[in-house]
Amino acid sequence: MSGAVSIEITSRDGEARAGVLHTPHGSVPTPTFMPVGTKGTVKGLTPGDLENIGAGVVLGNTYHLYFRPGVEIVKEAGGLHGFSRWGGPMLTDSGGYQVFSLAKTRKINEEGVEFASVYDGSIHAFTPEFTTRVQEDLGADISMVLDECPPPNAEREYHEASLRRTARWAERCKAAHTRESQSLFGIVQGGLFPDLREESLSLTTDIGFDGYAVGGLSVGESREEMLSMLSLVSPNLPSDKPRYFMGIGDPVGILEVIRLGVDMFDCVLPTRLARHGSVLTKDGRMNLKNAMFRRDFSPLDSECGCEACSEYSRAYLSHLVREDELLGHRMLTHHNVHFVTELCREAREHISAGDFEGWMENFKRRFSGGE
Amino acid sequence: MSGAVSIEITSRDGEARAGVLHTPHGSVPTPTFMPVGTKGTVKGLTPGDLENIGAGVVLGNTYHLYFRPGVEIVKEAGGLHGFSRWGGPMLTDSGGYQVFSLAKTRKINEEGVEFASVYDGSIHAFTPEFTTRVQEDLGADISMVLDECPPPNAEREYHEASLRRTARWAERCKAAHTRESQSLFGIVQGGLFPDLREESLSLTTDIGFDGYAVGGLSVGESREEMLSMLSLVSPNLPSDKPRYFMGIGDPVGILEVIRLGVDMFDCVLPTRLARHGSVLTKDGRMNLKNAMFRRDFSPLDSECGCEACSEYSRAYLSHLVREDELLGHRMLTHHNVHFVTELCREAREHISAGDFEGWMENFKRRFSGGE
Repeated sequence: MSGAVSIEITSRDGEARAGVLHTPHGSVPTPTFMPVGTKGTVKGLTPGDLENIGAGVVLGNTYHLYFRPGVEIVKEAGGLHGFSRWGGPMLTDSGGYQVFSLAKTRKINEEGVEFASVYDGSIHAFTPEFTTRVQEDLGADISMVLDECPPPNAEREYHEASLRRTARWAERCKAAHTRESQSLFGIVQGGLFPDLREESLSLTTDIGFDGYAVGGLSVGESREEMLSMLSLVSPNLPSDKPRYFMGIGDPVGILEVIRLGVDMFDCVLPTRLARHGSVLTKDGRMNLKNAMFRRDFSPLDSECGCEACSEYSRAYLSHLVREDELLGHRMLTHHNVHFVTELCREAREHISAGDFEGWMENFKRRFSGGE
Repeated sequence: MSGAVSIEITSRDGEARAGVLHTPHGSVPTPTFMPVGTKGTVKGLTPGDLENIGAGVVLGNTYHLYFRPGVEIVKEAGGLHGFSRWGGPMLTDSGGYQVFSLAKTRKINEEGVEFASVYDGSIHAFTPEFTTRVQEDLGADISMVLDECPPPNAEREYHEASLRRTARWAERCKAAHTRESQSLFGIVQGGLFPDLREESLSLTTDIGFDGYAVGGLSVGESREEMLSMLSLVSPNLPSDKPRYFMGIGDPVGILEVIRLGVDMFDCVLPTRLARHGSVLTKDGRMNLKNAMFRRDFSPLDSECGCEACSEYSRAYLSHLVREDELLGHRMLTHHNVHFVTELCREAREHISAGDFEGWMENFKRRFSGGE
């Protein structure tokens, strides 16, 4: 535990909390959405675009970067910051999630996990020590312990054994971690079993990390199940440490996890929706391939001040999206990342004002009344 | 002839000339490379990017815009300027080149040309009057007459009949043209036959246009043949009108046509090369997929001040290109358009300084010594 990253809570509203995340690459107001820069780039956007959007922490995927371009190249470039030229805070995952979700063949044992690369089928082994070292070489401000994210439909016995092994791996990650300018976060697993979630929480917090993530949710279970698990875990995490919910990016979901005290979250949804021609607005999702937008000369989102909304019409963006033009992908990505970033800013304001709950209910009502 | 667009020649060096093209959407120093915004967008770049690059005239393709999104939509948006939000000068071609190069089936007669759309096979007819009206609706500063660009290997008899029909079409375009804020340029054809080039030149200048293009070259003939035809035509065009060479974008070719007195030229080459991972530098073309760039942390082009070169390393851009990341296409396009734009700026300086020829020979020597 290096203490490189810390959180300062400045206001609370119920379980929801607003504050500031301090990192070696700057401070970020929380709650904060972290755009996913899978291979060292947030689809089509420059670091300058991300700065204009007001993005805070940018996430990199260790699994992908390990294979492409390879960790040695990123290290030689001065880490992910030097390589991608993003000067703000960064977080890398351990690669575990991709190992478990992408690999067709994998063997897990106490030592770690052996798997076939999704790129060329070659065999690789990730151990807690190895992914810790790789992440130190990538050099993000926050690194994550190697965990197993079991299939949502796995048996209780599997989850029990898995979370205990994940805790032993977490301990090995902590022992292996040496980079002073980088923090290491633990991950709470346990599937949809309340007592297993509690056990994982207690094992993980006993080890002690600079921050804690809740993993293994938003992977196919119902929204009620997800929130019920999160509400067991989140309030019982150390209140002086940042809380990271892994893998949520839909606007309503973001507000629901914020309501339960989460500070950070990431998801490919805003960027992936953009690549499929969909944008987020307060009135819901909107697919620009819909014929109704072909002659709609109003801005994408009249309440939004982003580059896409202040410059172009729906008709033009719809044309770009239909024709698979790069500028369409770029502008829609820009808007969607801006939208969730602004949503977090508003959430912070309403937490400070003490009216988060009512504001959130209004948002949900209007949003789900959309398309 | 509306006179909306005019040229002011400020210096000459041999046949080469430097000046300023005046249009209703601003003035552009010439010689100038015109980036191609096929469907109302220059692949991945915003109007703001083009402004930063220093781009002058942006070209739109009538054929593609007629089908996608359709001219009515562009017209309703306030023309190509309103639709794409590019505030500078624009030029549209007549669509003829695409009709002749893309259509599998087409029937040409005195009236015009009937062809099957490359998008859905539906049958359409372009006449001189029709393409003039479509271009008036698109509303660029410069529109082009409908011409036939015959296959390079066509017989002399075909070229002869074709250039005469093209001249009759040009006359009909001029008669049909009414938009005061838009100029109409004629096009000289005639294949590789010196006397036919002369006949086409004389027929076209007799009709009288605001500017003249040289068409039907750079379509498969040798560079020597191309330049020999251009050297017959260019110096005999009215010296007080802009001269546009259609379809050249390789750096050496650009300088060779500038040397013969051309003021404007366009080509998809810089943007197409970028999509294939290649960049232009003074040392020649460079393909970033080449393994030697994987660990090359120097800038793309150390003599270039564009966004791609001042921000990123070859290693990072090579990674983006290999992974087919949008940011890679965007940055390489940015650099290549910047490169040819800067090349034109330098050419203007050397025309003014009176040492164009020597500078061009040095450039050619260094450029062809590259990859």
